[in-house]
Amino acid sequence: VIELSDLKLVYSSDLADNVIKAGNFDLTNNFMLIGGPCAVETEKQILDIAKQVKKSGANILRGGAYKPRTSPYSFAGLGLEGLKYLQEAGEAVTLPTVTEVMDTRDIETVCQYCDIMQIGTRNAHNYSLLREAGRQDKPVILKRGMNSTIEEWLCSVEYLLKEGKKNVILCERGIRTTETYTRNTLDLSAVCVVKKMTKIPVIVDISHATGRKDIMEDLCLASVMAGCDGLMLEVHTNPNKALCDGKQSLRPNEYSNIVFKVKETRKFYCVLHKSAV
Amino acid sequence: VIELSDLKLVYSSDLADNVIKAGNFDLTNNFMLIGGPCAVETEKQILDIAKQVKKSGANILRGGAYKPRTSPYSFAGLGLEGLKYLQEAGEAVTLPTVTEVMDTRDIETVCQYCDIMQIGTRNAHNYSLLREAGRQDKPVILKRGMNSTIEEWLCSVEYLLKEGKKNVILCERGIRTTETYTRNTLDLSAVCVVKKMTKIPVIVDISHATGRKDIMEDLCLASVMAGCDGLMLEVHTNPNKALCDGKQSLRPNEYSNIVFKVKETRKFYCVLHKSAV
Amino acid sequence: VIELSDLKLVYSSDLADNVIKAGNFDLTNNFMLIGGPCAVETEKQILDIAKQVKKSGANILRGGAYKPRTSPYSFAGLGLEGLKYLQEAGEAVTLPTVTEVMDTRDIETVCQYCDIMQIGTRNAHNYSLLREAGRQDKPVILKRGMNSTIEEWLCSVEYLLKEGKKNVILCERGIRTTETYTRNTLDLSAVCVVKKMTKIPVIVDISHATGRKDIMEDLCLASVMAGCDGLMLEVHTNPNKALCDGKQSLRPNEYSNIVFKVKETRKFYCVLHKSAV
Amino acid sequence: VIELSDLKLVYSSDLADNVIKAGNFDLTNNFMLIGGPCAVETEKQILDIAKQVKKSGANILRGGAYKPRTSPYSFAGLGLEGLKYLQEAGEAVTLPTVTEVMDTRDIETVCQYCDIMQIGTRNAHNYSLLREAGRQDKPVILKRGMNSTIEEWLCSVEYLLKEGKKNVILCERGIRTTETYTRNTLDLSAVCVVKKMTKIPVIVDISHATGRKDIMEDLCLASVMAGCDGLMLEVHTNPNKALCDGKQSLRPNEYSNIVFKVKETRKFYCVLHKSAV
Repeated sequence: VIELSDLKLVYSSDLADNVIKAGNFDLTNNFMLIGGPCAVETEKQILDIAKQVKKSGANILRGGAYKPRTSPYSFAGLGLEGLKYLQEAGEAVTLPTVTEVMDTRDIETVCQYCDIMQIGTRNAHNYSLLREAGRQDKPVILKRGMNSTIEEWLCSVEYLLKEGKKNVILCERGIRTTETYTRNTLDLSAVCVVKKMTKIPVIVDISHATGRKDIMEDLCLASVMAGCDGLMLEVHTNPNKALCDGKQSLRPNEYSNIVFKVKETRKFYCVLHKSAV
Repeated sequence: VIELSDLKLVYSSDLADNVIKAGNFDLTNNFMLIGGPCAVETEKQILDIAKQVKKSGANILRGGAYKPRTSPYSFAGLGLEGLKYLQEAGEAVTLPTVTEVMDTRDIETVCQYCDIMQIGTRNAHNYSLLREAGRQDKPVILKRGMNSTIEEWLCSVEYLLKEGKKNVILCERGIRTTETYTRNTLDLSAVCVVKKMTKIPVIVDISHATGRKDIMEDLCLASVMAGCDGLMLEVHTNPNKALCDGKQSLRPNEYSNIVFKVKETRKFYCVLHKSAV
Repeated sequence: VIELSDLKLVYSSDLADNVIKAGNFDLTNNFMLIGGPCAVETEKQILDIAKQVKKSGANILRGGAYKPRTSPYSFAGLGLEGLKYLQEAGEAVTLPTVTEVMDTRDIETVCQYCDIMQIGTRNAHNYSLLREAGRQDKPVILKRGMNSTIEEWLCSVEYLLKEGKKNVILCERGIRTTETYTRNTLDLSAVCVVKKMTKIPVIVDISHATGRKDIMEDLCLASVMAGCDGLMLEVHTNPNKALCDGKQSLRPNEYSNIVFKVKETRKFYCVLHKSAV
Repeated sequence: VIELSDLKLVYSSDLADNVIKAGNFDLTNNFMLIGGPCAVETEKQILDIAKQVKKSGANILRGGAYKPRTSPYSFAGLGLEGLKYLQEAGEAVTLPTVTEVMDTRDIETVCQYCDIMQIGTRNAHNYSLLREAGRQDKPVILKRGMNSTIEEWLCSVEYLLKEGKKNVILCERGIRTTETYTRNTLDLSAVCVVKKMTKIPVIVDISHATGRKDIMEDLCLASVMAGCDGLMLEVHTNPNKALCDGKQSLRPNEYSNIVFKVKETRKFYCVLHKSAV
């Protein structure tokens, strides 16, 4: 049993004044709209998508270079080459970039090419990785493990904070349940609970939480009203040919429609709660 | 394995034109705001609460007379006496009433005193009860089993529809997961999925889904934006003395504040989606 | 939260001296070997199977007359007719019989025709049914709910005991998890824990726990060594034509082979633990 | 969705003739009895325990040097120092040793000091670690992720096999469910299923699966009859002072009693199935 009183850092009020930046972009005072493909596939692919998500209103570009795949025979990402393409695309459209890191040995390289590190659901309790990521300057998006309790998730954040890190963002991405009509079960209560317990921003990865395009818009709007600080969505210019997660990837126009409604809803949320947009 | 093609009734487009009424109150064209105590405790208690929830904007009064309790030593409801008090309170404030029925032998009595039957999570797969409830005139609110998949939930509805029933409402109330910071895990994706699959109204029981008052408002607003057709919340004038579920019961003023924001959010939802309020 | 100290009856040492009988057959001092089809289909079918399971070494005959089926279009049992065929078959081969009861209104009839009532997984928290079953003379086999914790299961037993009942048998039948290679996840730890906590006999329904014939023998033997008091297995003379659960039904010769090894293992268990067979 | 036909290596019949060795000890033709503390704490502690488990009949010594702990403030192991103490203790009692590795950067060191690498439940889907471990000579014990399906577990093994590795052992250690009376839910069906699907040996970690000493013996014997190839148990000479998992650690005499009954049961298993001990 964990003594919650031990988790001093995650509950610290100091985090309230914390401003998280990715390059010049202020992640704390902007509602984060992260879009991009599951994986960087080619130089052209990521550049094309980058242009589209920028036009659609995204303010952060995502793209995987190191992909954790259940089967060893699935496409596992382009590695360093993918990082370079992602960096170029981000610079071309002036969007900060985020990519997953899976191995302590890759952290330095990832930080060199990318603005935000992501620690994925399968590595949410990879404590070596958390410790090493906690020692870097770049912000970290920490996804919830697919079977993590909120308590365990907060313990994983504490690993990051313990290394002196402050620029951390949490990402709910659905938990695994016995339900089969959705890829995972989006747990919006967790977003609300974590927002009550800590001052760390919490975003939602709707694509992995649902795995179904037909309900993504509704759940994006629901997440905004639950009080989340940003949304991550997978976007691809050619979902049918995507090397990974094509079925759940939005086309740019679909993404654009969602972003429009998300922005309207965020405005309404701020008015209703009398807070700054 | 269930052949989904067998579930003809639940997917029928006929249900779209269906108007569900509780007495004179039209449940289809009004956003349902169900409030009231977990259990009817005394004549005075339910009348007091009825007045308060009416004033707060509720349009349906809830109150349990037959309570399914995990322990045989917990308060199990007043039975027939409770039904009578609930009916009186409903009439006094002109609100239709809803109460749970657990036994085929009680269905007739419940229908005599109450406007809407509720089939609870523990009886979501009690097929004898479903069959018998399906033969009655009064509307049924069918809660999702705490461990039911969406598919199994729809199969349970089909049991009701197969008896010729049309006035059915579904109620998401959280599923059981390994998370311990919330009583259950609210599954808003299920609301969205069910709304895509069938024309049956879907409401959300936020009290049982969360078990925590501090996140109820946020999740009510999230549920509205997810597209639900109503919200059920437990309200008590003296939560500390409640015989059941006191900890998760809202005080009338707390309920009132939530109802206000829910109505604002519902208006915004309808404007955004260009639909009638 | 349930006060476990409230569950006085289930932890009572009085149950230790309790002898449970089905007709003349002593269920306490014999390792229970329950075999038979999922559902009684015809007079001939149940008689044929009864002869076979008797020959194979079963000491109790099972057969469903009221079947809880997820889809309302699946075969739901022959009802009263099924009870009569089951009774005839049991008498023909001199085996006590067990059948599921799902509705308070059927309890009297079931007790008239059958030696042991079974309360199934879907009704494990149907408290009306538990209360009514608790008032009858015939023994009850209470299955664990597919999502019940051990604590909730013991609370359900307490409902039976509270009515004055003593002849109760518990049945572990697997719990639902995210694993898909087995129908449910057999929880043998629960058998061990319950045996430590109470003096009530615990049997295991291997057919529903696994849903796979290829691993049934191994898990039967494992269950014996875990200390269970009996095993329930579905047997059918023509699994391919079974109206229900054919895929997981053993052929009589397969059942016979398992019973032989179960008996050998039970003998070994008793020798190792220096207890009476 | 994983194409199971892709997992060629894990289903290969070549693995049947595979002899796995840890030093001179043949893990394939001996029932593995792994005992030792959760964590190596001091030079004396591991040596004392090593002597005791050897005397009790263990044939492999376990001890953690790198400990994955949910809270960053829990004891995380002695690291390299722990590896050295473990090696010394193993040599002193001539037992091969097993220890967990968590970081790709530690693999070489672990292989230098230890006979068998263990990949723990939190890293069961750490694909970088699997790939790197797959390139080493030393055998690997791969635990099942606490939320892994059997399919995902086999995919993780395939990662190891794909690197050319053949000396792999699987370890069931319970999955997380909603049950709270046991630490995890031991899934013996998974042992049986995996044994049917692949020729890879499967052992069971009873300590983590149950977390309760009172049921460990029964579940060890059940696991033997389910057909497992070995058992892992935590043993400590002073459980109350253990820095990790004390509550579930067996005292040497308790371990000794279990090993005796395990050996008797294994003999019975082999006689019943007419196989070599």
